Amino acid sequence: MTMIARLFATVSLLSLPAAGIAQVASAADDGKQIERTFDAQISSADQLAWLRDMSSAPNHVGSPHNRANAEMQLALFKEWGWDARIETFQVLYPTPISTTLELVAPERTTLGGQEPAVAEDPSSANLQGALPPYVAYQGDGDVTAPVVYVNYGMPDDYDALAARGISVKGKIVLARYGGGWRGLKPKLAQEHGAAGCLIYSDPADDGYGERDPFPRGGGRPAGGVQRGSVQDMTQYPGDPLTPGVGATAGAKRLTRATAPTILKIPALPISYGDATKIMSRLEGPVIEGRARGGLALAYHWGGTDAVKVHLAVKSDWSLKTLYDVIAVMPGKTRPEEWVVRGNHHDGWVFGASDPLTGQVALMSEAKAIGALAKTGWRPDRTIVYASWDGEEPGLLGSTEWVEAHAAELARKAVLYINTDGNGRGFLYAEGSHDLQHFVNAAARDVTDPQTSVSVLDRAQANVRASGYGDTSRRDDDAIALAAARAGGDMPIGALGSGSDYSAFLQHLGIPSLDIGFGGEGGGGGSYHSIYDSFYHVTKFDDPGLVYGAVLSKMVGRLVLRAADGPRVPARYGDFATTVSRYVGEVKKLAADQREKDRALRDLTREDVFKLASNPDDPTIAPANRGVTPLIDMLALEDAADRLGRSAHDADAAVERMATLTPAAQARMLALLRSIDQLLIDPAGLPGRPWFRNLVYAPGTLTGYGAKTLPGVREAIEQRRFADATTYVTRTAAVLNAYADRLDAAAVAAK
Amino acid sequence: MTMIARLFATVSLLSLPAAGIAQVASAADDGKQIERTFDAQISSADQLAWLRDMSSAPNHVGSPHNRANAEMQLALFKEWGWDARIETFQVLYPTPISTTLELVAPERTTLGGQEPAVAEDPSSANLQGALPPYVAYQGDGDVTAPVVYVNYGMPDDYDALAARGISVKGKIVLARYGGGWRGLKPKLAQEHGAAGCLIYSDPADDGYGERDPFPRGGGRPAGGVQRGSVQDMTQYPGDPLTPGVGATAGAKRLTRATAPTILKIPALPISYGDATKIMSRLEGPVIEGRARGGLALAYHWGGTDAVKVHLAVKSDWSLKTLYDVIAVMPGKTRPEEWVVRGNHHDGWVFGASDPLTGQVALMSEAKAIGALAKTGWRPDRTIVYASWDGEEPGLLGSTEWVEAHAAELARKAVLYINTDGNGRGFLYAEGSHDLQHFVNAAARDVTDPQTSVSVLDRAQANVRASGYGDTSRRDDDAIALAAARAGGDMPIGALGSGSDYSAFLQHLGIPSLDIGFGGEGGGGGSYHSIYDSFYHVTKFDDPGLVYGAVLSKMVGRLVLRAADGPRVPARYGDFATTVSRYVGEVKKLAADQREKDRALRDLTREDVFKLASNPDDPTIAPANRGVTPLIDMLALEDAADRLGRSAHDADAAVERMATLTPAAQARMLALLRSIDQLLIDPAGLPGRPWFRNLVYAPGTLTGYGAKTLPGVREAIEQRRFADATTYVTRTAAVLNAYADRLDAAAVAAK
Repeated sequence: MTMIARLFATVSLLSLPAAGIAQVASAADDGKQIERTFDAQISSADQLAWLRDMSSAPNHVGSPHNRANAEMQLALFKEWGWDARIETFQVLYPTPISTTLELVAPERTTLGGQEPAVAEDPSSANLQGALPPYVAYQGDGDVTAPVVYVNYGMPDDYDALAARGISVKGKIVLARYGGGWRGLKPKLAQEHGAAGCLIYSDPADDGYGERDPFPRGGGRPAGGVQRGSVQDMTQYPGDPLTPGVGATAGAKRLTRATAPTILKIPALPISYGDATKIMSRLEGPVIEGRARGGLALAYHWGGTDAVKVHLAVKSDWSLKTLYDVIAVMPGKTRPEEWVVRGNHHDGWVFGASDPLTGQVALMSEAKAIGALAKTGWRPDRTIVYASWDGEEPGLLGSTEWVEAHAAELARKAVLYINTDGNGRGFLYAEGSHDLQHFVNAAARDVTDPQTSVSVLDRAQANVRASGYGDTSRRDDDAIALAAARAGGDMPIGALGSGSDYSAFLQHLGIPSLDIGFGGEGGGGGSYHSIYDSFYHVTKFDDPGLVYGAVLSKMVGRLVLRAADGPRVPARYGDFATTVSRYVGEVKKLAADQREKDRALRDLTREDVFKLASNPDDPTIAPANRGVTPLIDMLALEDAADRLGRSAHDADAAVERMATLTPAAQARMLALLRSIDQLLIDPAGLPGRPWFRNLVYAPGTLTGYGAKTLPGVREAIEQRRFADATTYVTRTAAVLNAYADRLDAAAVAAK
Repeated sequence: MTMIARLFATVSLLSLPAAGIAQVASAADDGKQIERTFDAQISSADQLAWLRDMSSAPNHVGSPHNRANAEMQLALFKEWGWDARIETFQVLYPTPISTTLELVAPERTTLGGQEPAVAEDPSSANLQGALPPYVAYQGDGDVTAPVVYVNYGMPDDYDALAARGISVKGKIVLARYGGGWRGLKPKLAQEHGAAGCLIYSDPADDGYGERDPFPRGGGRPAGGVQRGSVQDMTQYPGDPLTPGVGATAGAKRLTRATAPTILKIPALPISYGDATKIMSRLEGPVIEGRARGGLALAYHWGGTDAVKVHLAVKSDWSLKTLYDVIAVMPGKTRPEEWVVRGNHHDGWVFGASDPLTGQVALMSEAKAIGALAKTGWRPDRTIVYASWDGEEPGLLGSTEWVEAHAAELARKAVLYINTDGNGRGFLYAEGSHDLQHFVNAAARDVTDPQTSVSVLDRAQANVRASGYGDTSRRDDDAIALAAARAGGDMPIGALGSGSDYSAFLQHLGIPSLDIGFGGEGGGGGSYHSIYDSFYHVTKFDDPGLVYGAVLSKMVGRLVLRAADGPRVPARYGDFATTVSRYVGEVKKLAADQREKDRALRDLTREDVFKLASNPDDPTIAPANRGVTPLIDMLALEDAADRLGRSAHDADAAVERMATLTPAAQARMLALLRSIDQLLIDPAGLPGRPWFRNLVYAPGTLTGYGAKTLPGVREAIEQRRFADATTYVTRTAAVLNAYADRLDAAAVAAK
């Protein structure tokens, strides 16, 4: 469900000496011939053939073609020499029986329904078995009510409405996509008392604001609709009925009514063509600035009885079967250490770009590794290739598999590498920061087909070219720019959610990476619509699947390098530097929030908002939420400082590893192997115990976007100040445990 | 021709002790009764009646109703007790004989022509004698050529085109309004070899991006067109044929062919309805980000033969007569010192908002001062009320009058106060910074009718409310915000151009102010269109002309306070602080530009732009223009420092004035009276000798927007580095002359 290509995001520069390089370099030397052989097996033609076949019919969970795709992959994995199987799970996956949307006032007009066919795109007219636009895990219902436009439907939008005295209670909110994850929009609407929720794709964010609408270009057309999940994955992903355990046939299940991740109000996604018919009729003050989108009209908040909509959704709430394809290549020297590599195979309709561009790259890798194995080569570690089902509705296939195999994974998994939809453009990478240098080293060795420099060089050029003349840079951008300018490693971003790494990283603490290319081409204009087709991918997103092959080469290197040699080449200094930056951010957050609270109190006391209010758009002061107290973060600051010193020593010890006795080496490797799992606190995050990683989490109010040091950061943002203090201690504890382990490893190496 | 209400702009805070307050306060005490009497005469009902009459027919230069308005005012001034006359000038003022615009490829469609009537607005259907949409002083011609979209048509837009290898040579550029003054668009197009120029009002900047289109709201509708002047006023304003001298009947004249301020290529303004018909057909790379506007389509640069337009303009280039109405109220004790107050009376069509909302406020003031005079009161100084003709085509009436009376004005004028179109909302003020406290003191004494606090308090509340939560503040905003928070004087902005103060301030150095209200209501959506009507003004811009009365009270105070007492209460510390800030800005500009040049050289050397280029929108590196050299600004820095000290001493001396002998007082006042004229350098600015003020000028590449310390600042920006050095010296010289005069005044007071 990856939405857009992100560039290398935002993390600290490396400031420590290049420990780990020795391993990577030597692995690269040993592996050079292997990687050349691997590369020779990567074929865009293969990928095109698989893509055409797998995207030839709707392949959502429960569809015949979804199962056929799983079985086809099973057969291929076996043919390529893998030990492959299909694992099934029984999950609650609602599909619409009927969806109804009508404007009923000021006049009656039918809206909604399936997206229109486009002559150039043959599959768009071949929708047998396709689901209509809907959002999975909305609440079913039948309501008629006035409409309130809520912009992105995020908390600050509700503040803007409150300042105008506009309530959404009993009304249907109309939110635009963007500004936060889809599922938060109906959730926040429900919390504010709304009776229903519509979500549309505004052309400023996803349409002619960026590119020509399909079919002239790859952008979203007026009739295009973004499907998706609105399951409350900020509590836990996976099957709503089986939190924390695999959804096997005999698993104990919640009921639909008691499952907390299913919404209670009906919701539907709509096109901007339909949204225009509603928006053009809304009344109330005109919206200026960032709360308006790109429709050709003045935006109004609405909320009056002048505009009413009838919204009804009825779903089939039966259990459906997931088909996860799992393929294993046993390791020869360390078979109990697993490198896991995954992508999902289910789509919303044809799923050509999302997920199949990533899926066919994974298949190319598996074919090439199989070919290596046929020459007699075997990896040191066991390689597990996984083709997940049910990612779209809520990371179902990966989450249930991880939950079902949690104990074994905690013992064995040393790395999870994820991909999802892929496109033409620039490398992006997010993940555990001790793997930052590992990713950069691979990116130096993969050639960009458009420029013939490495994909790392091209990513750096992009950051540098975008940075020229940009004077309004954020801190994160400045760090990336400085790294690009120096020609060193690029910072990788932190993982939030939105694809299948979540259960690995955030539930178990397995170090994880998410890799892809993008930023050029179609740019997501077909995302979760019927236009996400073979035609669209090969015309706009990645013609010839040239970047499909590049992705295979990039990820293949990561898999092969992680699977061979004494250890996955982590560099702890990168992690320590990054954590130190996060601690600084959290301190600044608390100080800035306090200052803002203080300013608001002052402005309110002096009636400033009232005096400045425009009678055409009367506003009152924002609600007074008190002043953020001083929060003592000493324990966290100390832990970050200590982590830096311990990481420095451990990285130095790793560099000396070749000089150690085999017993000392083994002690050290055993201590470091599962170090990332120490970031897990069994109690989890406040209010959402499934999320147990105290460094990386998706935000409860971002959904996909990462919140680092989430126990502390979100407690401050959400004004749970007691939690903030508690999680300063807990977070410091996991960081200290990590540092203890580093120290032990450094001692073991002596 | 004021386009939009600006809030209190951006200048340094006052940090000097409140010299001058004594005078203002005592004047206010003496004048309290006078001001009460004055206020009692201000009547919105009067203003409504005059507005209805004066906007009842087209009143552009040369129209019968324009002359009738002048004669009506003459009669009123006389009736109110003023010594009034009409002064006429003969100016070149082209009016269209025919305007033609057609799309000729890919299909033939007629575009352009008069704007459509709107049922709610009676005058929009009553266009007898109205001019069609056109821009005055374009070059006439008949061309058919491909169209290139050039965004705002400013220099950085041509850089973006050059990076894509797109030339405008021989083509017709299509520019949107905004980003710089209208007249620069065809001028820069001509310099780049274009054959013609179209300018349209993009709805993002002027339309549904801000408010509901007329008649639902006050915003510009799809058929609305902004007329205006494209005379090259950055060289000199006024009659193009008589630069520097009054356009009297016998004046020596240039020919049309030799007048440098008349363009050579044809140009027309068009509606966004028409622009859409062109834009939707353009080819080439899609434009993302800030270079696109708010039309409901993907923007393309175009430039291919696929889209061609036929553009033809033919004008009547005969001389027309201007009617300036000049009314004098002789001073009783200092008749040789003049306080001049002006607004213009010509419009583009009905001119209800621009200029008549300001004009009727001026008339209210004149009536009230006349009433005061009938009670036997007389000002100390002579008050001159001026109702200018021909401002719209190029500040014609004020410029010719100033040029014709230059010697007398240099001797006598101590202040010029300008207004133009006015609206509901917040006070804004721009002008000579030694008058900053004078303006603030008056603003403390005028009540805002919507909130019952002073208009200063409301302006401060607006700055403070807008500043809440805004983390991306520019330095200027931060200064205004700090001032507002402290409750002290608000910084006033520097004057560029765009209304009738130009000749006073920038040609003669007479200290000047421009005052108005705005920021609420219609917001300029009728600007220079047929919809700038009595209906529009009273429905949207200033219902009941409530703020017309507020403007009269604000400006009336300034006039009465300036006309009475020993001196116009200037405070030199405010000027010195502001100049010091400007010097800092200019130093930073040079340093930043050098850094940016250096970065570009580095990026180009390493092929970064090529590597980052997206094949869908291939771009090359920006042109290498060399590296900005180090520029020695020591003389300017020293002059600013010295000015600060001299101002401090002079302000202190002024505060002691009441304790001096009459002879010492007289010496001091005589020295200070014309001090602002010392900022004039007879040689003027590089390449435009008419502009002689070395502190305040309109920018050659902003048109309206001010460039302070323009000789130095623009030389750096435009990479004329020899000029920069020369004007460091010249600017330091005028500042030192000003400081010398302050020192002499301080000595005189001893």
